[in-house]
Amino acid sequence: MLYLSSVICRLSPEKMHVLITGATGMIGRKLTARLVEGGELRGRKIEKLTLSDISAPQRPEGFAGGVDTFGADIGDPATADRAVAGRPDVIFHLAAIVSGEAELDFEKGNRINLDGSRTLLEAVRRCGDGYRPRFVFTSSIAVFGAPFPEAIADEFHLTPLTSYGTQKAIVELLLADYTRRGFVDGVGIRLPTISVRPGKPNKAASGFFSSIIREPLNGEEAVLPVDDSVMHWHASPRSAVGFLIHAAGLPSEQLGPRINLTMPGVACTVAEQIDALRRIAGDKVAARIHRTPDPLIARIVAGWPRRFDPRRALALGFRAEASFDEIIRTHIEDELASKIAL
Amino acid sequence: MLYLSSVICRLSPEKMHVLITGATGMIGRKLTARLVEGGELRGRKIEKLTLSDISAPQRPEGFAGGVDTFGADIGDPATADRAVAGRPDVIFHLAAIVSGEAELDFEKGNRINLDGSRTLLEAVRRCGDGYRPRFVFTSSIAVFGAPFPEAIADEFHLTPLTSYGTQKAIVELLLADYTRRGFVDGVGIRLPTISVRPGKPNKAASGFFSSIIREPLNGEEAVLPVDDSVMHWHASPRSAVGFLIHAAGLPSEQLGPRINLTMPGVACTVAEQIDALRRIAGDKVAARIHRTPDPLIARIVAGWPRRFDPRRALALGFRAEASFDEIIRTHIEDELASKIAL
Repeated sequence: MLYLSSVICRLSPEKMHVLITGATGMIGRKLTARLVEGGELRGRKIEKLTLSDISAPQRPEGFAGGVDTFGADIGDPATADRAVAGRPDVIFHLAAIVSGEAELDFEKGNRINLDGSRTLLEAVRRCGDGYRPRFVFTSSIAVFGAPFPEAIADEFHLTPLTSYGTQKAIVELLLADYTRRGFVDGVGIRLPTISVRPGKPNKAASGFFSSIIREPLNGEEAVLPVDDSVMHWHASPRSAVGFLIHAAGLPSEQLGPRINLTMPGVACTVAEQIDALRRIAGDKVAARIHRTPDPLIARIVAGWPRRFDPRRALALGFRAEASFDEIIRTHIEDELASKIAL
Repeated sequence: MLYLSSVICRLSPEKMHVLITGATGMIGRKLTARLVEGGELRGRKIEKLTLSDISAPQRPEGFAGGVDTFGADIGDPATADRAVAGRPDVIFHLAAIVSGEAELDFEKGNRINLDGSRTLLEAVRRCGDGYRPRFVFTSSIAVFGAPFPEAIADEFHLTPLTSYGTQKAIVELLLADYTRRGFVDGVGIRLPTISVRPGKPNKAASGFFSSIIREPLNGEEAVLPVDDSVMHWHASPRSAVGFLIHAAGLPSEQLGPRINLTMPGVACTVAEQIDALRRIAGDKVAARIHRTPDPLIARIVAGWPRRFDPRRALALGFRAEASFDEIIRTHIEDELASKIAL
């Protein structure tokens, strides 16, 4: 069986089978849609999609190839074996529990974010038949912890101040070692805060970065819990999907051994976010933001990175928006069908 | 039982119970001897020593307090529970398999160096009775990987190029998170290459750094497999033990959240090592070094760090030798009873 897969792999170099873990999440759904729409990856036609999440993801519409969707806990070792049984050529490993939940539930965070990822890497390694997929891992700027220099360079150390950031930093290290040893062909990408996040407001400490744009554009009021001077690092959901697809296609020889990369983004203050909103949607929309300081959120956000100098990712061709204005316009195009509530 | 331990702990704030894992190793034996000789740690009399290794360590001579020695595999979860059952106040976690073995046996390296350390941290956390020992972890400069700046600063990133270095870097991250969450009171110290290592020559790629000094001082020939210009970062076994004891006593509030520290050392080239040997022991001794280039060793060593700028450790009071001459003199005092073979 293992031998057969290996032979099939060699006989069909043109096939492209893509696995997405965490396919039901916001990024997972957008990535699936983009792959279905484009129909190819690494210059090869996508013939099969395997989509997994804690509940079975919906089958994407309009996809001509084969689809395998299944619901399973990534913390369960059997899930990893099932996920790689069909020898996907590219693995997008997005499955994770979010920062807030990993902080509240230490054991669950380690089980899902750390052991779940390690088990998936192990499942690939244990194939042992020369199988070596491109493994794209979504890390996060949460791997960094204050104090920071004015702009964080690619060689700055990882000192996470959350269990989530710790788990992501550990998986980066594992991914690099598994890649160095030839078990997988890994790329870790540290996503900026994704703005403007579509959907309902949530309780994440970072939620306001999106809600102060999203709610006013929907004709709703939004609360700003921190000072206007707070600076942060943003990229749109569209850029995040672009990073993933670009990472899937990067030639290993361009990457070298340092396979974990900080993604580009837009550094801007809350004041600059609001100015951009006003330029695009007018004073009336911007006036829907109300300042209600929250010392707890302010303290959490103070430990977060503000600005990066992601030279390697830029040199490797990763691209984000050039301004927060562009991030807002992307949101209006992608989520609001180019319509806003004036 | 758990409750009782906790009560005893509170009733006897002056007691000091020390656990050493990997107590049979070179550093473990020297640390044990130093603790027995000094009789105290963190200003408190040592009343109990728990010593573990894969085979039961020898009971130290001349120690008035209680000693528990046991042989067990640190990769076995039961070992960790046994190790912390007596609620040691200070844990020196030295147990590990070495770099070469971890590179040859990937699964064993992960099982011992990664899972063994994590299981020990978990055993402490699971006590759940307010137990929060000082946990001193011996990391290594192997957490760093080339290319390097001229001197590696405290904020330089960790990109290990061996599985051993990866495992040490991961445990550093876990230790920091367990410490941040209040489960342990951790300090990770990144040891330089220990020179001059006593004992027989071994096959480690770094072995020549010690053997070109140790063998000539013993009247034996030594092989130098790399160019004289190779620079590396050294500290004596005596300094390594000093780092461990200093780390055990460091106040947490001085440390802050960045609990993993690069230790001070001596940066010198092989030529400078040989010059120091000549100054101390004369031309005849230095002439016992024979140059036999080994391209494999030269390539491995080329990826190793050369020089650090360990400001934080120095500011926190960690001290190494000031020169390689001093490292050689320490070796002659500690290992050769101040006698050399001229």
